Amino acid sequence: MATLEQLRQTVMDVLTEQAKFYRRGFAREPQTEIVQVFDTVHDHFQIAALSWEGETQIYNIFFHLDIKGEKVWIQVNNTDESIAELLLERGLQKSDIVLGLQPPYKRPYTGYASE
Amino acid sequence: MATLEQLRQTVMDVLTEQAKFYRRGFAREPQTEIVQVFDTVHDHFQIAALSWEGETQIYNIFFHLDIKGEKVWIQVNNTDESIAELLLERGLQKSDIVLGLQPPYKRPYTGYASE
Repeated sequence: MATLEQLRQTVMDVLTEQAKFYRRGFAREPQTEIVQVFDTVHDHFQIAALSWEGETQIYNIFFHLDIKGEKVWIQVNNTDESIAELLLERGLQKSDIVLGLQPPYKRPYTGYASE
Repeated sequence: MATLEQLRQTVMDVLTEQAKFYRRGFAREPQTEIVQVFDTVHDHFQIAALSWEGETQIYNIFFHLDIKGEKVWIQVNNTDESIAELLLERGLQKSDIVLGLQPPYKRPYTGYASE
């Protein structure tokens, strides 16, 4: 079981990598800002994009992860990247991770932690 | 002109009040979590709601404020509360605030800072 500090560091490492990836991807669109939100007091972690297309504001949350009950909760993932797999590659166990984006009744069947 | 520390504290005070308001509002829906995201390193501040209705996840960002260039940027406000007015009530000046949710060309006409 990972320590709280390991969970935080792993989440921030994975999301920092993802933010870099999206910043490279949007390098030709300087009006697009990739925002990295790391709240290590309340343990909420996000990557979001802020942009404008003409008069229309674009606001997209790519990822929202929380740490609670000494687990990483993947709450939102609006990309096709598996954040859970990236967390596993960096040494977390499935039992350290809750797929919060799955309905509660499905979580016991995911192979990951249920809560 | 407010100091960076005053800007941060005012933003966090206003959003903490808003989070309390929404927590009271959702008190009878224990499945709804009001999430307060304060990143004082990158200066991003948010209030979000996470919930489930049956198999459907509800994820709503009520507010997203940033501090950049020694101004408060109101980036997202999905409520009918004027966050700008709440910031003014707590002592900020219009020149401390950018209405980032207005298209850039409109900002010079808002009475608030343009950038």
